[in-house]
Amino acid sequence: MRVQAFAALVAKAALVPFAYDAAALGDEDVEIEVSHCGLCHSDVHLIDDAWNRSTYPLVPGHEVVGRVVAVGRAVTHLAVGARVGVGWQRSACFACDRCLAGHENLCAAQQATCIGHHGGLGERLRTDARFAFALPDGMESAEAAPLLCGGVTVFAPLRRYGADAKRTVGVIGVGGLGHLAVRFAAAFGCEVVAFTSSPDKRKELHAMGAHEVQSSTDARALRGLADRIDLLISTVPARLDWILYLQALRPNGVLCLVGASPGLLQVPAAQLLTGQKSICGSDIGDRGTMVEMLRFAARHRIVPTVETRPMQDVNLGIERLRANQARYRIVLEN
Amino acid sequence: MRVQAFAALVAKAALVPFAYDAAALGDEDVEIEVSHCGLCHSDVHLIDDAWNRSTYPLVPGHEVVGRVVAVGRAVTHLAVGARVGVGWQRSACFACDRCLAGHENLCAAQQATCIGHHGGLGERLRTDARFAFALPDGMESAEAAPLLCGGVTVFAPLRRYGADAKRTVGVIGVGGLGHLAVRFAAAFGCEVVAFTSSPDKRKELHAMGAHEVQSSTDARALRGLADRIDLLISTVPARLDWILYLQALRPNGVLCLVGASPGLLQVPAAQLLTGQKSICGSDIGDRGTMVEMLRFAARHRIVPTVETRPMQDVNLGIERLRANQARYRIVLEN
Repeated sequence: MRVQAFAALVAKAALVPFAYDAAALGDEDVEIEVSHCGLCHSDVHLIDDAWNRSTYPLVPGHEVVGRVVAVGRAVTHLAVGARVGVGWQRSACFACDRCLAGHENLCAAQQATCIGHHGGLGERLRTDARFAFALPDGMESAEAAPLLCGGVTVFAPLRRYGADAKRTVGVIGVGGLGHLAVRFAAAFGCEVVAFTSSPDKRKELHAMGAHEVQSSTDARALRGLADRIDLLISTVPARLDWILYLQALRPNGVLCLVGASPGLLQVPAAQLLTGQKSICGSDIGDRGTMVEMLRFAARHRIVPTVETRPMQDVNLGIERLRANQARYRIVLEN
Repeated sequence: MRVQAFAALVAKAALVPFAYDAAALGDEDVEIEVSHCGLCHSDVHLIDDAWNRSTYPLVPGHEVVGRVVAVGRAVTHLAVGARVGVGWQRSACFACDRCLAGHENLCAAQQATCIGHHGGLGERLRTDARFAFALPDGMESAEAAPLLCGGVTVFAPLRRYGADAKRTVGVIGVGGLGHLAVRFAAAFGCEVVAFTSSPDKRKELHAMGAHEVQSSTDARALRGLADRIDLLISTVPARLDWILYLQALRPNGVLCLVGASPGLLQVPAAQLLTGQKSICGSDIGDRGTMVEMLRFAARHRIVPTVETRPMQDVNLGIERLRANQARYRIVLEN
């Protein structure tokens, strides 16, 4: 089957129309007619080969929504016509300790939707049906797309670290991931503090559910927040003053990175000991968490704020993303 | 009341006999006739004023065991004659959020047994009865002493981070704290890997319950342990190659510091993200954990290996501790 898509032919290039022959539909596979695909910062990193893992031509796109048009012989949970979403992860081994424990996102043999395979920025996508998730009725497709990577990436640590009505959650960086973290945390009943370097977002952040908006870079303001926050989720791929953020944590507090900060984290060991604080990372979410997140989002109407554009405008979308102009997630539409 | 004790008169000094007038017995206080007192590395730090928190004359000792000889008017849970133990913490505010949640060890207003008060290296100790714990029958007093600081300090993170029969626990540094961590982890059903810089301890560590003994400083050996351990408890106040230890963690693994490593921890953020790893600190234990630990130790016969010496030999004990010669905890006896 021939698939019309958009690809970077070399690192850092603008995307161009690109057709490829899809692999044969395997027993566990599903073929999706793509209606929408979100744009994530990871797509930009892949285009730029920032992680030295990209292969070209590279079709990005890992927040994919569409209708099932064909299923492999072994697929029982999805039928032709189902509306599904696909995120960052494409497959897992289903045999290792992590998979057996339901943590497929930690499987060492996992594959990604658009590393070594072509992603969702095209008309069709053939992928492992075990990582295609039926979307709840009533959820708009354009609004479902950003949940599939950005949404689950922030939902997973909120759940893992006990975000609930007695906790104060801080969200550092309020873009595609962060604005969903604010909405999820507010829906969990948390007190929510949003940290942003864009003061123009303040009013919108309050409307999303933030009870307080702070500068993410003003050291003096951060010092004033000592002992205020139980769980800090950092969505920013930037070096921040982690010592000040650790001070902002209450005892037993957790600083969780979901965006890779470049270079080394440098913190005094004594700052972790006194107050029993943690620094940790969280990496997308497992399948169970994805299903739970979709149900939760449908039930509580957690809806990303999206800019929907025709898929042929993909390069414009990527430029807006590179310039931090997306408010808050760009979704491309066929 | 006049108390005969041993004190450092100035920083880094040898202890000398020292008599002081104890404060009046408060309503919530208890007076203990000290039978035993363990020696902890923190006592050495206090003697040396390593934390700039010491006041002199300083009577160290915060692993105190003895009989209750008087109780304040408000004390209901202990009676004269009871055998009790006292650890690092002397009191808490019992009013802040942490105290209300049962985490008195995180109370900002907490006081320590031998900071600003005289500790247990003497004949008597007057202290807050709410931090005096009845000892289980059948537990030897000399063997109970090291549990009151060293024991609870390693028991708390083992419990908090889910050490159980499906986990592999690594213990870095096998001294007073570490040898108890090995015994607790083995009793929890964990696979136990002990990391030591003293190869002569190997045979003893196996007898304590370690399934594997590794060098704590051999980079090549550490590299060979990649993806092996769920929970690493570091008891050493030393700089180690934390990057190698993080590599030794399985996905979702936790590196927990209970001994303050000097200087900065420096780790790549990406190493926390990939595999969802955590670095955290743990600080003694709350009262509920202390009681649970004592019950568990009694039930499963978790017994520290002690060198018992007469209290007048305190300086010899301190010298052995400074020289890392204690096998494994020095306990002084009246």
